[in-house]
Amino acid sequence: MDKRSYLVVGGDIRSVKLANSLMADGNDVKIYGFNNAGFELGMKESKKLEDAIDKVETVIGPLPFSNDNETFNAPFCSEKIYINDVFKMMNKKQLLIAGRISEKISHLAQVYNVYSIDLLDREEMAVLNAIPTAEGAIQIAMEEMPITLHGSNTLVLGFGRIGKILSKMLLGIGSNVFVEARKYADIAWIKSYGYQSVYLNELKDYVGKMDVIFNTIPHVVLDTQVLRDIAKDCLIIDLASKPGGVDFDKAKEFGIKTMWALSLPGKVAPVTAAKYIKSTIYNIIEELGV
Amino acid sequence: MDKRSYLVVGGDIRSVKLANSLMADGNDVKIYGFNNAGFELGMKESKKLEDAIDKVETVIGPLPFSNDNETFNAPFCSEKIYINDVFKMMNKKQLLIAGRISEKISHLAQVYNVYSIDLLDREEMAVLNAIPTAEGAIQIAMEEMPITLHGSNTLVLGFGRIGKILSKMLLGIGSNVFVEARKYADIAWIKSYGYQSVYLNELKDYVGKMDVIFNTIPHVVLDTQVLRDIAKDCLIIDLASKPGGVDFDKAKEFGIKTMWALSLPGKVAPVTAAKYIKSTIYNIIEELGV
Amino acid sequence: MDKRSYLVVGGDIRSVKLANSLMADGNDVKIYGFNNAGFELGMKESKKLEDAIDKVETVIGPLPFSNDNETFNAPFCSEKIYINDVFKMMNKKQLLIAGRISEKISHLAQVYNVYSIDLLDREEMAVLNAIPTAEGAIQIAMEEMPITLHGSNTLVLGFGRIGKILSKMLLGIGSNVFVEARKYADIAWIKSYGYQSVYLNELKDYVGKMDVIFNTIPHVVLDTQVLRDIAKDCLIIDLASKPGGVDFDKAKEFGIKTMWALSLPGKVAPVTAAKYIKSTIYNIIEELGV
Amino acid sequence: MDKRSYLVVGGDIRSVKLANSLMADGNDVKIYGFNNAGFELGMKESKKLEDAIDKVETVIGPLPFSNDNETFNAPFCSEKIYINDVFKMMNKKQLLIAGRISEKISHLAQVYNVYSIDLLDREEMAVLNAIPTAEGAIQIAMEEMPITLHGSNTLVLGFGRIGKILSKMLLGIGSNVFVEARKYADIAWIKSYGYQSVYLNELKDYVGKMDVIFNTIPHVVLDTQVLRDIAKDCLIIDLASKPGGVDFDKAKEFGIKTMWALSLPGKVAPVTAAKYIKSTIYNIIEELGV
Repeated sequence: MDKRSYLVVGGDIRSVKLANSLMADGNDVKIYGFNNAGFELGMKESKKLEDAIDKVETVIGPLPFSNDNETFNAPFCSEKIYINDVFKMMNKKQLLIAGRISEKISHLAQVYNVYSIDLLDREEMAVLNAIPTAEGAIQIAMEEMPITLHGSNTLVLGFGRIGKILSKMLLGIGSNVFVEARKYADIAWIKSYGYQSVYLNELKDYVGKMDVIFNTIPHVVLDTQVLRDIAKDCLIIDLASKPGGVDFDKAKEFGIKTMWALSLPGKVAPVTAAKYIKSTIYNIIEELGV
Repeated sequence: MDKRSYLVVGGDIRSVKLANSLMADGNDVKIYGFNNAGFELGMKESKKLEDAIDKVETVIGPLPFSNDNETFNAPFCSEKIYINDVFKMMNKKQLLIAGRISEKISHLAQVYNVYSIDLLDREEMAVLNAIPTAEGAIQIAMEEMPITLHGSNTLVLGFGRIGKILSKMLLGIGSNVFVEARKYADIAWIKSYGYQSVYLNELKDYVGKMDVIFNTIPHVVLDTQVLRDIAKDCLIIDLASKPGGVDFDKAKEFGIKTMWALSLPGKVAPVTAAKYIKSTIYNIIEELGV
Repeated sequence: MDKRSYLVVGGDIRSVKLANSLMADGNDVKIYGFNNAGFELGMKESKKLEDAIDKVETVIGPLPFSNDNETFNAPFCSEKIYINDVFKMMNKKQLLIAGRISEKISHLAQVYNVYSIDLLDREEMAVLNAIPTAEGAIQIAMEEMPITLHGSNTLVLGFGRIGKILSKMLLGIGSNVFVEARKYADIAWIKSYGYQSVYLNELKDYVGKMDVIFNTIPHVVLDTQVLRDIAKDCLIIDLASKPGGVDFDKAKEFGIKTMWALSLPGKVAPVTAAKYIKSTIYNIIEELGV
Repeated sequence: MDKRSYLVVGGDIRSVKLANSLMADGNDVKIYGFNNAGFELGMKESKKLEDAIDKVETVIGPLPFSNDNETFNAPFCSEKIYINDVFKMMNKKQLLIAGRISEKISHLAQVYNVYSIDLLDREEMAVLNAIPTAEGAIQIAMEEMPITLHGSNTLVLGFGRIGKILSKMLLGIGSNVFVEARKYADIAWIKSYGYQSVYLNELKDYVGKMDVIFNTIPHVVLDTQVLRDIAKDCLIIDLASKPGGVDFDKAKEFGIKTMWALSLPGKVAPVTAAKYIKSTIYNIIEELGV
């Protein structure tokens, strides 16, 4: 990779780790938006945003980019960083890379002639992010359960990215792994990988003997009917984004412990998450040939 | 599954195993086209094709269906079975299931109002078939090499169905597994599964230290340039359908042993292959709701 | 297994789980020594120890049996339970099973004609205990590290029971596993299982690139000389009983984070630990033929 | 390792591969006893045995050393090589390393003041040899069975060296692995590794559903009583040295296919076997400090 200049603006601890990692590779890196971070940044922060932007080829935004479509998601910054302002300062040749760029912001970028790329549109990023997500889910199960995963019955709902990696890790620890899917081809894959396959419509026959259920499907699979058959000491860990896959109220009513675990990569493994972001940024730049 | 009536017409040993397995499940099964099989059929053959067809709901053709677009692929039959004739005898309510139904035959079926379904269009069938293919490839490597796969460097070209299952098995035996792909997302998957990833353009840097190379990509990846760097005692096993992935003439010239292994499921594990065909037939019938 | 009568006296939460599990199998079970437990016992406690002992075939003591060689290890009991007293109440036909019975107590048992068996003398118990120990060590590593174990370099010192199971689980999660041993035969085993082997005298060459080091050897392997080469952000988890395998003072001086994790089964997976104790008790009784 | 001088006398193809591999490491290597080998030796053979012995530090004998206690096991040599003669030519400072040195030969060595070491007394050699043995057994199963090992029920009798490595490989290919043992501790290990454990006395309950049975126990476990319950299409592969673990006559009578597969390393993977012999020779020399 040729060396480049980067400015990392806002974001959580992953952004700080990313900046340091980019620098360790010999790139020219600046950061902005961390004046309130209570920890070592590893490098000096730029004082003026405009000056910092002026000199770089690539601006790296947070992941997710914004929570309000107006300002950068910058939890460690005492002031607001307006997207508007940043876009105004950028020129056509510069590149903006960030995570979950909303349609609204994407439109704004076009208005300002800013070339933006969403990290989460990258398939490899989504795959890699599934690794810390799966490992974080396992950590939660270990912390919450009075039994080992080894020798337990665990059920993974859904065989997408997270489902695939989570099943593999659970088997690797010694769990009896059951995986639910609804497509015949997925069932074939599940068998070929050595897990026990469960068709969606057989779910009720299996949930009763499970010790932990991990959901990765973003709609309510664990409804009243299925919850009724789940053992009271079973733990449900929901990894699906809103609305999640569990009828949480019903689960509570039935006395089944449920944990809705979102955004695990940044929480359980920020350094690994930063490494994967960096690797995806390099892929983007390699493909663009810039 | 409700019981049904089947007629298995032609095919290799898998068709015989399939017929017996369908019967063991309680279905009503007839067979035709095996008068020259030198082995136990496990059931009586129907004498007249027309009578046999008359009474069944489903006709199961060979896999592949035909080698000449005119007659059934029926290696154990002393006479030719014309597709034309069979289609003429079938009625609208009957179902024809076979493997690799060519466009020409498919057109003919439409003309005769025969409802035909190709097994190889089924994703789950393709996934399941990759299991005996991968295992057959491993058997060949074991037979041909004076070293164990355990501890060897093995390279899998391509990370499709066969590539995925083959890599997993090789790792399971204790091989040092390298997998080549060209998409960043595939590289991410390869890493997540614990194999060493090789970009297509890095191939030349890796092939030199490989003990066995398995190709699954159906175009010439191992060309003169790459072959030049492969060790003389490396074995190449090509699993790709025509034209294959190896410049065979050049490989021979360079003194590199190459094996083009096609149609492995029927050769190395006909009983397992028949089991997967049966399971796919059941899925088809379940989906049709017939 | 024939049903028997048991009295569980003292111990931590594992003893309570054990009592319930023995009862669920249809045995006649009493408990004593839990009047201060702040949680549901699942069964009534016997009021008088003497009456309780009077009617049972087997007395199950804590694990470890005693911390002072005088009283039962009974953290949930408001009064002291004297070993002396219990031995006095027991008769020749009764069996005492407990964990880590010291030589002094063992001698006392002989004096009182009590037939005692130490759970920790049972090889299967030691093997099974290694499972929650290994899983607990993994949980700690996940909690403490800002990186995933997947893709990390992890080193296991020692290839005994815990070393074997821990290495397998780490590989199963996707870690790059290195295992240190000093015997050629162990090195052969390590290679055969697919880990990277490290001879004791090569340790200094490897520790520098490790992310987590797990020690299972009960004497100081990680001394000043080795610690000097360990990265500052490496985590050391010491699983060895006293004196442990790390020069803790030096590690602190060098700024290397070290955790001494003992008695993990009871802490991270009391229910699984109780299951293994029960299974070992059954083996003992089966062997005795009582 | 310091370079040394070796003379390889007699043996099968492994001895030739060993000689070449020792030479490739920079050692000074001679060979004798291969004048009838129909293949490339890779180096010149010494003409006179006495001259060859005269100049070397180490003499490497065959594996096994002798079949008659009188002559070297030298299948590629047109003349007999008498052990007596060789011992006479050797001096006190020279080292003889060979495999399976009988008590009689060992005694003879003492008489002639020859310092001899048996490779098979080395634990690491026995462990490493289990790798090609297990892989060879898998190759045979693949060749003989019309089903894939993936998805099959396989039973391994005995959990010693071969049992451990074979179980691991079978699981790695995707087999449902059952392992029989008679010690509680072994059963604990079997469970901890994720196999299904079978007590010796439960054998009859399990054998009926097995597709392949691998025996590693050197006494008749599969007797009339057990054979009676084995399915007719089950394959038995016996890996145990004489007398083997199967009542072969009874098995034949019952129509069960049985294969007695001995000395697999030299047959299926001579190059790997030679590599392991070399590594063990180096360990021996390192330990002796010569």
